[in-house]
Amino acid sequence: MYKLDINCDMGESFGTYTKGRDEEILPYITSANIACGFHAGDASTMKKTVELALEHNVAIGAHPGLNDLVGFGRRNMDITPAEAYDIVVYQIGALQAFVQTQGGTLQHVKPHGALYNMAARNKDLAQAITQAVTDVDSELILFGLAGSALYEAGKQNGLRTASEVFSDRTYQEDGTLTSRRQSNALITDHNQAVQQVIRMVKQQQVHTLQQVDIAIQADTVCIHGDGEQALSFAKHIHGALQSASIKIEHIHTIV
Amino acid sequence: MYKLDINCDMGESFGTYTKGRDEEILPYITSANIACGFHAGDASTMKKTVELALEHNVAIGAHPGLNDLVGFGRRNMDITPAEAYDIVVYQIGALQAFVQTQGGTLQHVKPHGALYNMAARNKDLAQAITQAVTDVDSELILFGLAGSALYEAGKQNGLRTASEVFSDRTYQEDGTLTSRRQSNALITDHNQAVQQVIRMVKQQQVHTLQQVDIAIQADTVCIHGDGEQALSFAKHIHGALQSASIKIEHIHTIV
Amino acid sequence: MYKLDINCDMGESFGTYTKGRDEEILPYITSANIACGFHAGDASTMKKTVELALEHNVAIGAHPGLNDLVGFGRRNMDITPAEAYDIVVYQIGALQAFVQTQGGTLQHVKPHGALYNMAARNKDLAQAITQAVTDVDSELILFGLAGSALYEAGKQNGLRTASEVFSDRTYQEDGTLTSRRQSNALITDHNQAVQQVIRMVKQQQVHTLQQVDIAIQADTVCIHGDGEQALSFAKHIHGALQSASIKIEHIHTIV
Amino acid sequence: MYKLDINCDMGESFGTYTKGRDEEILPYITSANIACGFHAGDASTMKKTVELALEHNVAIGAHPGLNDLVGFGRRNMDITPAEAYDIVVYQIGALQAFVQTQGGTLQHVKPHGALYNMAARNKDLAQAITQAVTDVDSELILFGLAGSALYEAGKQNGLRTASEVFSDRTYQEDGTLTSRRQSNALITDHNQAVQQVIRMVKQQQVHTLQQVDIAIQADTVCIHGDGEQALSFAKHIHGALQSASIKIEHIHTIV
Repeated sequence: MYKLDINCDMGESFGTYTKGRDEEILPYITSANIACGFHAGDASTMKKTVELALEHNVAIGAHPGLNDLVGFGRRNMDITPAEAYDIVVYQIGALQAFVQTQGGTLQHVKPHGALYNMAARNKDLAQAITQAVTDVDSELILFGLAGSALYEAGKQNGLRTASEVFSDRTYQEDGTLTSRRQSNALITDHNQAVQQVIRMVKQQQVHTLQQVDIAIQADTVCIHGDGEQALSFAKHIHGALQSASIKIEHIHTIV
Repeated sequence: MYKLDINCDMGESFGTYTKGRDEEILPYITSANIACGFHAGDASTMKKTVELALEHNVAIGAHPGLNDLVGFGRRNMDITPAEAYDIVVYQIGALQAFVQTQGGTLQHVKPHGALYNMAARNKDLAQAITQAVTDVDSELILFGLAGSALYEAGKQNGLRTASEVFSDRTYQEDGTLTSRRQSNALITDHNQAVQQVIRMVKQQQVHTLQQVDIAIQADTVCIHGDGEQALSFAKHIHGALQSASIKIEHIHTIV
Repeated sequence: MYKLDINCDMGESFGTYTKGRDEEILPYITSANIACGFHAGDASTMKKTVELALEHNVAIGAHPGLNDLVGFGRRNMDITPAEAYDIVVYQIGALQAFVQTQGGTLQHVKPHGALYNMAARNKDLAQAITQAVTDVDSELILFGLAGSALYEAGKQNGLRTASEVFSDRTYQEDGTLTSRRQSNALITDHNQAVQQVIRMVKQQQVHTLQQVDIAIQADTVCIHGDGEQALSFAKHIHGALQSASIKIEHIHTIV
Repeated sequence: MYKLDINCDMGESFGTYTKGRDEEILPYITSANIACGFHAGDASTMKKTVELALEHNVAIGAHPGLNDLVGFGRRNMDITPAEAYDIVVYQIGALQAFVQTQGGTLQHVKPHGALYNMAARNKDLAQAITQAVTDVDSELILFGLAGSALYEAGKQNGLRTASEVFSDRTYQEDGTLTSRRQSNALITDHNQAVQQVIRMVKQQQVHTLQQVDIAIQADTVCIHGDGEQALSFAKHIHGALQSASIKIEHIHTIV
C-alpha cells in the first residue's frame, strides 16, 4: 500500500502581521512545520498554532530558520556549523515547550528556507543540524530534501529521516530543485503537480527538465499555506492522492 | 541550621558583546539565572553558559525577560498576562533544550528586570508567569521578590517558590525595594550588605529606611555578576556567610 | 472657507508581511505617515512607499514609533525623554533620506501608537519629541492629538503644529479619546463618523460620551488604511467632506 | 608632501553593551566611521558618538552594515543589490540626522564588515552602494578597499572615493587581504604594521605573502578601536607617521 505524509509550513504570522491560512489548510495535511520566532512566528503565534494543530490531529514539527525576520529566513547567510547547531537547539526547545504545555508531542524538525537549502548542499551544516536534533530528542524525525546532504546526514546518524518532495517544483537531473531564479522552476498546473507526486510515490521516479527520469523517494510532500491557490491546491492534492489509492498518513507511520 | 542559596544572573553576553564575569563568579554561587535571548543572551551564549554552570555544579535557572534588547529588559512595558505567559514559556523552553542536550536539569525560573518588577506588583502578571512555569514543568522552582505578588502567586499555585532577598538594596517599610531613582537605594559598603543578609537569614528581619524592622524570608540572595566590584563581593559574601554558620546550599534543598 | 487635511498611516508592511492598502487609499488622502522601521516598515518598504506617495502628490510625514515590532509599537514602554528624542531623530533621518533621494520634501512628523499616546499625556515626552523634530528641521509640521500635551508642546516651541482629530473614535469630556478597552470607543457607522468630523471642522465642537459638547480644533483627520472597511470609508469621507464644502488640502496650507 | 587619513570604527556599543574605547582613540584619528544601528549601535549611542567626534574635530562617516546584530554584521548574506541600496540609504539618513542636529556635516560612508567585503568583490553590490551614497548626497566620500570593486564603482560614478589600506593585515598578490581564516592574515608586530603603511604611502607599494610587491594607493588607513592593543597602536601609528613626515589629514583634503 502506498503512503504519503503531507506537510505544510504554519505559524508564520508575526505580531499583528498575518500570513497563511493555517486553519483552513489544516484539515488537508498531516504534518505542520511551525515557525519558531527567528524567520517568522512569535511566542503567541506559536502557542495558537500548536493549539490549532492539536485540534486537527495534525502532527507538529519545529521549523527553525535563520535569524532574519525581514528576509523571512530566505537569504543565505554564512553561519558556522556551531551556530547552526545552537539556533536549531534553541528553536526546537522553544516550540517543544508550547507542545508539552498543551499535552502534545513534538514529532519532527524541518529546517526553513535558506537553512534548509544550505543544509541540502553543505555537509557540515547538515551534520550540525542532525546533531542538534539528535541531542534534543533522538526520537524526532528529520525532514530533508530527497537525496540531499541533510537527508543523508540524518540517515547516517541513525535519525528517523523523511525524504521530502515538492509537487510544484521542477527537478534537475542531479536531483536538485530547479532554482527559483529560472523561469521553469515552478509547476503551476495543479494536475501536473499532483501527477508528479503520484509518480514519485508509485514509481519512485521523477521526470527532470533534462528529459530523463531519476530515482526519488517520497515520504512526505510539501504544500504551501500562503497565496491565492494554497487552499484549493491543498484540497485538490488531498483528494487526488486518495483517488490514486495513496493513503495520507502521519510520517511517523511511514519512516 | 541556617541555609541560603546564592543566585546570580549569567549568560548576558550577546553576539560579540560581552557582559559579566560568569566564569569567575560561578565558584561562589549555587544558582545561575541564564538569559534566554530576549533581553540578553543568544543561542550560542546560552549553550556556553549552561556548559560552564554544569562544570561548576551550579544549578541552572531560566531568566526570561521582556523582548527589549536595547533596553536590557529593564523598561516596563504594557504587556498582557497572556503575552507574559507566552514569552515565559518560549524562553524556558529554549533554555531547557540546552540544559537537556548537555545532560543537566533545569532547576528554577527567575523573571528578569522589568518583568520581575512588574510581576512583583501586578497579580495578573504574577499569575500568568506562575502558570507558565507550572505548565512547562511543575517541578521547577519559581524565584520571586520576598513578599511580592509573584512569590505569593507561586505559593498559592503549589509551586516550590523561593523568597529572594537583596544584599545591596535598601528596603521600604512595606517590604518593597527602594527605587533606584532614590539616592539611598543602594548599599555600597560590602560589610553592611552582608550584615543585612545575615540578619535576614538568622532573624528573618530587615531594617528599613523608615527605621523600623520588618519580617522577611530569605531563601536565596541575589548578587551581581557585572561591574567592578562583582567578583570581590561574591568572594566576600561567600566567605562571610560561611563564617556566620550559614550554609550555602542549592535552593532545591531549601524550599 | 473650511479646510481639512486627511492623513493615514502608510508603509506598515515588513519584509514579506504586507499590511494596509496603501496604493488604493492614497487617492483619498493628503498626508501619508510612513513607518520608519521600528514598530513597522523596513528600508525597502519605506523606499517604495515614498515613491507611491510622491506619485500621488500626497505629502510625506515620518511616523516614528517604539522599538517594538512584535507589539506594533502599541504597548506603552517606560522610555526616558532622552530615549524618545533619540529614536525620533533616528527615524526621521532614515525616512528623510528616502524622501530626499527621490526629490521630495518631508512635510511632517506624527508619532505612532503608544509613543503618540504617551506623548499626549506626558509633558516631558512631548517636549522631547518636539525638540527632536525642531532639531532635525524646524520647518517640519508636528501632528498631535487635539488638546494634548504633544500639541501644546509643539505650539509652545514655535513648531507648526497640526491638531489631529479622529472620525471613528468617541471623545471624553476632558477631550481625550475613549479608551479602546471600553465598548463604546469606536464609531462604526460611516455616516456618524463623517458627521462628527464635519461638526468638528465647521463648529469646532465635538459631542462627548458625557453628553456635553466640548471645543475642538480639527486641522487634520486620521483615517485607517488597514482592515475591511478602510477603502470604502476613505472614499466615503473624501466625498462627504467635499459635499459639505470642506476643502481637502495639504496640511501645510492649513497650519 | 605625503598625507594620510586615519579612520576607525566607532559607536559600536549597543544598549547596555559597551564596545570600543572611542573617547581614548579619537585624539589619534581623523575619520570616525559610526555604526548606524544595524550591525551595532543604537540611536542613543549614535547621538553620543557624534557628539564625541565633533568635540575632537574628527570627521564623521556613516558605517552601514548588514541587519545582523548577533553576528555583528560579519556574516555574508545573500542580499540583492536593491536591498543593499535600501539599507545603505536608511542608515546614512539615520546618522545624518544626528550629525545635522548637532551642527556637523557628514563626510563619508564606509560599509561595514561583510557588506564591505562583499562589495569589494561583487560589482552589482558595489554599484548599488555607490548609487545609494550618490543619491543621498553626491558630496559624500566613499571608502573602499584599495583596488576593490567598491573603490572602482565609486570612482567610475564620479564620487570622491578613498582608497583604504590596512596596517595590520597581510596582502595577497592580487591585492586582496589574506583571509582571516589563514594563520598569517594578521600583522601583530606594531613596527611591522606601521612600516607597511609608511611604504604604502611613500612608495605606493605593498609586499605580499607571495613575496612580490604590488602597487597600492593609500588614502586612508583603518585602525581598530577595540581590543587590548587598540589604544597603544593608535598612539604608535599616529606618532610614527608624523616622524616619517606623513601628515595626518582629514580625507576631504586628500581625495
